[in-house]
Amino acid sequence: MESNHIAIIHGPNLNTLGQREIGIYGGKTLEEINDEIRLEASKFPVSLDFFQSNVEGFIIDFIHGCRGKIDGIVINAGAHTHYSIALRDAIAAVKLPTIEVHISNIYKREAFRHVSIISPVCIGQICGFSSYSYILGLHALLEVLAEKDK
Amino acid sequence: MESNHIAIIHGPNLNTLGQREIGIYGGKTLEEINDEIRLEASKFPVSLDFFQSNVEGFIIDFIHGCRGKIDGIVINAGAHTHYSIALRDAIAAVKLPTIEVHISNIYKREAFRHVSIISPVCIGQICGFSSYSYILGLHALLEVLAEKDK
Amino acid sequence: MESNHIAIIHGPNLNTLGQREIGIYGGKTLEEINDEIRLEASKFPVSLDFFQSNVEGFIIDFIHGCRGKIDGIVINAGAHTHYSIALRDAIAAVKLPTIEVHISNIYKREAFRHVSIISPVCIGQICGFSSYSYILGLHALLEVLAEKDK
Amino acid sequence: MESNHIAIIHGPNLNTLGQREIGIYGGKTLEEINDEIRLEASKFPVSLDFFQSNVEGFIIDFIHGCRGKIDGIVINAGAHTHYSIALRDAIAAVKLPTIEVHISNIYKREAFRHVSIISPVCIGQICGFSSYSYILGLHALLEVLAEKDK
Amino acid sequence: MESNHIAIIHGPNLNTLGQREIGIYGGKTLEEINDEIRLEASKFPVSLDFFQSNVEGFIIDFIHGCRGKIDGIVINAGAHTHYSIALRDAIAAVKLPTIEVHISNIYKREAFRHVSIISPVCIGQICGFSSYSYILGLHALLEVLAEKDK
Amino acid sequence: MESNHIAIIHGPNLNTLGQREIGIYGGKTLEEINDEIRLEASKFPVSLDFFQSNVEGFIIDFIHGCRGKIDGIVINAGAHTHYSIALRDAIAAVKLPTIEVHISNIYKREAFRHVSIISPVCIGQICGFSSYSYILGLHALLEVLAEKDK
Amino acid sequence: MESNHIAIIHGPNLNTLGQREIGIYGGKTLEEINDEIRLEASKFPVSLDFFQSNVEGFIIDFIHGCRGKIDGIVINAGAHTHYSIALRDAIAAVKLPTIEVHISNIYKREAFRHVSIISPVCIGQICGFSSYSYILGLHALLEVLAEKDK
Amino acid sequence: MESNHIAIIHGPNLNTLGQREIGIYGGKTLEEINDEIRLEASKFPVSLDFFQSNVEGFIIDFIHGCRGKIDGIVINAGAHTHYSIALRDAIAAVKLPTIEVHISNIYKREAFRHVSIISPVCIGQICGFSSYSYILGLHALLEVLAEKDK
Amino acid sequence: MESNHIAIIHGPNLNTLGQREIGIYGGKTLEEINDEIRLEASKFPVSLDFFQSNVEGFIIDFIHGCRGKIDGIVINAGAHTHYSIALRDAIAAVKLPTIEVHISNIYKREAFRHVSIISPVCIGQICGFSSYSYILGLHALLEVLAEKDK
Amino acid sequence: MESNHIAIIHGPNLNTLGQREIGIYGGKTLEEINDEIRLEASKFPVSLDFFQSNVEGFIIDFIHGCRGKIDGIVINAGAHTHYSIALRDAIAAVKLPTIEVHISNIYKREAFRHVSIISPVCIGQICGFSSYSYILGLHALLEVLAEKDK
Amino acid sequence: MESNHIAIIHGPNLNTLGQREIGIYGGKTLEEINDEIRLEASKFPVSLDFFQSNVEGFIIDFIHGCRGKIDGIVINAGAHTHYSIALRDAIAAVKLPTIEVHISNIYKREAFRHVSIISPVCIGQICGFSSYSYILGLHALLEVLAEKDK
Amino acid sequence: MESNHIAIIHGPNLNTLGQREIGIYGGKTLEEINDEIRLEASKFPVSLDFFQSNVEGFIIDFIHGCRGKIDGIVINAGAHTHYSIALRDAIAAVKLPTIEVHISNIYKREAFRHVSIISPVCIGQICGFSSYSYILGLHALLEVLAEKDK
Repeated sequence: MESNHIAIIHGPNLNTLGQREIGIYGGKTLEEINDEIRLEASKFPVSLDFFQSNVEGFIIDFIHGCRGKIDGIVINAGAHTHYSIALRDAIAAVKLPTIEVHISNIYKREAFRHVSIISPVCIGQICGFSSYSYILGLHALLEVLAEKDK
Repeated sequence: MESNHIAIIHGPNLNTLGQREIGIYGGKTLEEINDEIRLEASKFPVSLDFFQSNVEGFIIDFIHGCRGKIDGIVINAGAHTHYSIALRDAIAAVKLPTIEVHISNIYKREAFRHVSIISPVCIGQICGFSSYSYILGLHALLEVLAEKDK
Repeated sequence: MESNHIAIIHGPNLNTLGQREIGIYGGKTLEEINDEIRLEASKFPVSLDFFQSNVEGFIIDFIHGCRGKIDGIVINAGAHTHYSIALRDAIAAVKLPTIEVHISNIYKREAFRHVSIISPVCIGQICGFSSYSYILGLHALLEVLAEKDK
Repeated sequence: MESNHIAIIHGPNLNTLGQREIGIYGGKTLEEINDEIRLEASKFPVSLDFFQSNVEGFIIDFIHGCRGKIDGIVINAGAHTHYSIALRDAIAAVKLPTIEVHISNIYKREAFRHVSIISPVCIGQICGFSSYSYILGLHALLEVLAEKDK
Repeated sequence: MESNHIAIIHGPNLNTLGQREIGIYGGKTLEEINDEIRLEASKFPVSLDFFQSNVEGFIIDFIHGCRGKIDGIVINAGAHTHYSIALRDAIAAVKLPTIEVHISNIYKREAFRHVSIISPVCIGQICGFSSYSYILGLHALLEVLAEKDK
Repeated sequence: MESNHIAIIHGPNLNTLGQREIGIYGGKTLEEINDEIRLEASKFPVSLDFFQSNVEGFIIDFIHGCRGKIDGIVINAGAHTHYSIALRDAIAAVKLPTIEVHISNIYKREAFRHVSIISPVCIGQICGFSSYSYILGLHALLEVLAEKDK
Repeated sequence: MESNHIAIIHGPNLNTLGQREIGIYGGKTLEEINDEIRLEASKFPVSLDFFQSNVEGFIIDFIHGCRGKIDGIVINAGAHTHYSIALRDAIAAVKLPTIEVHISNIYKREAFRHVSIISPVCIGQICGFSSYSYILGLHALLEVLAEKDK
Repeated sequence: MESNHIAIIHGPNLNTLGQREIGIYGGKTLEEINDEIRLEASKFPVSLDFFQSNVEGFIIDFIHGCRGKIDGIVINAGAHTHYSIALRDAIAAVKLPTIEVHISNIYKREAFRHVSIISPVCIGQICGFSSYSYILGLHALLEVLAEKDK
Repeated sequence: MESNHIAIIHGPNLNTLGQREIGIYGGKTLEEINDEIRLEASKFPVSLDFFQSNVEGFIIDFIHGCRGKIDGIVINAGAHTHYSIALRDAIAAVKLPTIEVHISNIYKREAFRHVSIISPVCIGQICGFSSYSYILGLHALLEVLAEKDK
Repeated sequence: MESNHIAIIHGPNLNTLGQREIGIYGGKTLEEINDEIRLEASKFPVSLDFFQSNVEGFIIDFIHGCRGKIDGIVINAGAHTHYSIALRDAIAAVKLPTIEVHISNIYKREAFRHVSIISPVCIGQICGFSSYSYILGLHALLEVLAEKDK
Repeated sequence: MESNHIAIIHGPNLNTLGQREIGIYGGKTLEEINDEIRLEASKFPVSLDFFQSNVEGFIIDFIHGCRGKIDGIVINAGAHTHYSIALRDAIAAVKLPTIEVHISNIYKREAFRHVSIISPVCIGQICGFSSYSYILGLHALLEVLAEKDK
Repeated sequence: MESNHIAIIHGPNLNTLGQREIGIYGGKTLEEINDEIRLEASKFPVSLDFFQSNVEGFIIDFIHGCRGKIDGIVINAGAHTHYSIALRDAIAAVKLPTIEVHISNIYKREAFRHVSIISPVCIGQICGFSSYSYILGLHALLEVLAEKDK
């Protein structure tokens, strides 16, 4: 099994993690979460590419750039999850296996957060496990990639 | 860290796994999936209790019986996910940390499967990773239990 | 006025009363509530038949069995109140005067609890008075039966 | 247990009881119903204050006047049940325990009568027992007041 | 054919006719319209009773008072047309033949004016003919009363 | 005031009047109703043109043909009232004053009959007065035409 | 053409046929209906397997058990028709040709009976012909099986 | 039992059967289906009258003409099933027992085909059995007529 | 700039301010708020007319009376904001510049408070600033009147 | 490239173009528009067949007749666009490439004109360019036919 | 009272003010409005920070940057008001008192502008007063900040 | 006729054309499509300005910049078509004739693509003709500009 290249994408406002609404999102900063992911990834033959932006179009640009360089994506699209059809189209366009993760259980929150516009173009969804959702997303993606290699 | 007792609950029709609609649910039987879970669980100080039924009320009875004996639940409620308010109430009643899992990505399927009536009383949701959803659910539950022990 | 035979039916999860969500349902166990009903009933020429099940079909079986033996029903259908059309049909089928009761005020809770599918086939509804809803339901049924005797 | 002061409020059109749509509302006049309530109340250490009006604002005025003089309210809000947010606010404002009653089972009637805008600010609801709904409402209120005294 | 007693009821804001929104309601004052109705009625053996109020409850009081004294009602309920269930109940309670009229064509205006809550308890509806809607309503009522006399 | 030419249009199934559902539509045949209209019209300087068809397109053809020959229309569009946007467009196209009439009170019937797609392009609506709705419609149209002549 | 094995499944409350709501369901008992089906089936090379239960899960168990033993199913799912997604999944899982039948015309009844959750996984639907719906369902299934044999 | 006269009505586009969308409607032409119906009918004392039109109004004309000449109707209303209130009124007007049939299972197709506007005025509905739906419809109608003769 | 006459209107239940739900509405009484408005108004060449009523019709009467005497209105319509079409019509009828104010942010509360039926006939809306909403409303009205004077 | 035969179909009321609502539809008559289409078509090896009718069924008949004689269709279905499922089925049945055109931008008009029931069975839609929409539709169809010839 | 630092944020398209749709937005340019705000602010011990962008993500970046430097925000989010959940999350994240302002009365415009997704995370809303809405917003914010200082 | 300056705008993800979902969007790259447009435009006295961005705000900036320099716009807004109210406002602000084009027939795709938020501010819409939609859009715009010059 050769090394996989994986992109970890964080959507709008996730750069403020650890500072805002700690009751909902937990007290870790985005950098601390990235470190957790790095630590977990170090156990596998995998390299990581991190990206965060508050601009929908820049995230789309980044996803386009993944083609040919990245084997799979773990994305927490933040609020864009619920209305960015453009983001959905970008994920569909690059055709890379993509795992949707959320820190909070979006189904316990406001009604407008119960619908994910990107779910139908992702392999699966993981939500509600705080920063550990990313770790589970990483494992899920590695499993999906391993299945493809078979 | 002492041993945890975990219940794995399978809802209606999951006893036919590996036989029905393989394109959606994959080709593994329920027993093969249970074996995978057992194998993964053997790496942790944890004991498992498996239960499957097609009868909503028997699943509720089983969940009631978990109180005092079980530390957490991983549940794939099958079709009951979408309408069994009684199941939801049972999960809420026992107050055990519960992880909702699904083999398929329910958001890619018929509209009536896009709503989970039990999500708001579970810690989080994992869907779309075939039988591996259970393995991720087990890890998620162990993480939740470990956090509580701190 | 001769003695009436009355069935008291408790739907799913009501066997856990006194243990779960005490803020919503109060701290009395189902047996304590049944005792309260027995005590109140002892003041009237009436015999009681208690039934609880978490299985929709078993409650339906019990209701069918009431025909010819029971004069009226007081039912707290629990979560089945909101979706069990089969339960509704069973009540309609036996044609016995039936009183719908709820411990909590269902109109103060989640939106999906605001609709009772069984209301249109019951004489009336009483909700929100904790275990005393059953006592009021018993009185209401006795009044209805007394009116019929006239 | 000292004496309680209770207000019995009748909303619009209830002054025509016994004259209109007897199939739905029964043949008793409002005065006959008030007499039944008086008779029942005479068994308890309680005084009653009756009020009927067809004017939403006068009912609100009356409810405001209850503060400091009345211990609890039994209200049949008639058609205002379904749209008078102002009545709801009045009940919420005085913070007195309030019991909602209806002569008919509103859930068996036209769809626009299935929603009660005042339910969420009342202790509980009783409907469908003809004039006896008021007697049950009186008992329910006395129980609530007794619980508070404990 | 003996003389009929007919009530003409004008709901809220109709006292400002001829002063407000002339493009929608025309330039005649309420008194001018009443005069037109009187003139037309003078051709028939019929007496008229006029009533206008901005208070929902006072209109209900007036309708209650029609029982035994009035043979039929022509009502322009104004904005109450669209939400006053209490007004509807009052019309249903007195059981007098009632004709619903509107000056403007309510189906050409804002969506919330397209539904009349009182239509189902009236004989029929006439709208859109300016003040002449009342004259047509008078004729319609006379026809209905004549049919009853047969 | 010179003579007006008026078209009376009957939509689908109205040729069966007096034979079908007499409880809803009354016992008069279409010819008897036309005779009533003729009789009433004979009191005014007005000529009538009658048309009935079960074919939507033929009614549209007839309406187109009214241009230049007819001064106003009284139409009972029958079931087409509720879905024929093409009929609506035809009425709007000829720009003749048009009165919508219905024999029954459509607001007392099935929900799908509560919406008239043609109302917004008609002067006004009259419904619920049996065959007399046509007579009122004739009067309304004459009034409208008289107003225009002023 | 060799013999076919056919299951006839009756859902909740159908065991009370002939006793309840005869205006809707007719006066025959379930056993009399089964006899009619047996009589009709005796004209064809076919064996029958009858099943009735009020428990959703037991019906699902029975359907699972049909695999390998039964060639086709005629099912009257009763009230489960309208909400049991688990029943739908069971029918989809066994992949046997299934005919949906109803004694009453469900489209003439309450709105919540107008939707069948199982229709999309059945070959076709027959409703409204009283007990004869089953006979038609038997014929339809035999036709479907005969087509497959070709 | 004397001979019955039965009308078989085919709605819009059914004249193209066997040519269009064979995956949905099968490969038989309308004439071949009519022949199948004739063959089946020849086993009973029954005469048939066939009619097809793409014009809603002509089908209505034909249905009107059935009165006094026809004992019952089997109708496949094609697309008119879903919006022709005029067709519904025609069926209701002639008061003949009418059976609704469809070649395809309309509940497996686009959402706008899930509602039949004519179902509530028909005895029952049969759909999904290809051309055999007509044969079942013929049998159903004969059963209904035989029941009436009793 | 000559003096302006301004009406300050308070709708139902606002007479209980300072006594009810202080968390939502703050602790000031209506009289204290009126004093704040008076104090602020004293800085401008403006006279004030205060009015409060719980009766919809009396508020409408008052608004009618403003014509010719008042230059502009600041109104907190309380619960009538959400359903009183009659109030809306009154505001539209007098054609005075009207400013809608609310003490609480109605968009943070129950869904039925998110719609204001009077907004489309007011100049603008101010909500959420406690009693200071009135002061802002006064300023807004003065600005609007000053613009008109230009 | 050999000559193509193209049908230009105009739905209900389009025969009145140039006479009705010129603000919406422009001032050209249908014949003038047809002449424009003829002129443009004369530049290509293509023959045209024009058809207009106000009768849904006759348009369907015409479309059926296109099979085998016509290579593609440009259709302005007028008001039938929004509700004629029968027309949609006709287009789907003949399987000819069909271009949907509209003179006005239907998305700027009444809400019921925002949905086209025929769009999903057409190649594409062009709307809003006045009579030039037909010219664009002709070009689009020629392009589609040219692509097929490749 | 020490000096406050306030951010004034303008959303998409507001840079074109004074140039576009003057009937709706007035004729002042954004710079002129900023000057008005500066002038008004000069009367208070307050400094201002202006920001305008058409890019959702840049506005979010700016809001994040307010933390620790800014005491409160006045925001006109333009079209983002109605769909940018990400903007809402940004406002919620920084936890600064935020006032929502609009130049036009959004409740008088298209239905999709009647909902503000950011209202629930702002202190209050001011709309409809043209550029003066900003001045009122400034006053409202100063009042809120003054209350906090107490 | 002097030369026109036209902007061709491509929204999010259109830079990946020819690479993604070829079944839906065809196999041509954006540059190839731009070449086709250039080639067609070379036949007319017109200059072109191309722009593509994945950032909503940058597209808005570009549209603002068109004022005074560009005579008309052809825009394929991609996914922004369905939710970017800000884009709509930008188009409305510059008041340039704008043609909306789509490569695919958006009415054949997911329900959320059936609504275009920008249609009401564009002249017209063209969809479903693959890259040829742009050519038709160019022609349509030239026609619109030519009409204005008259």
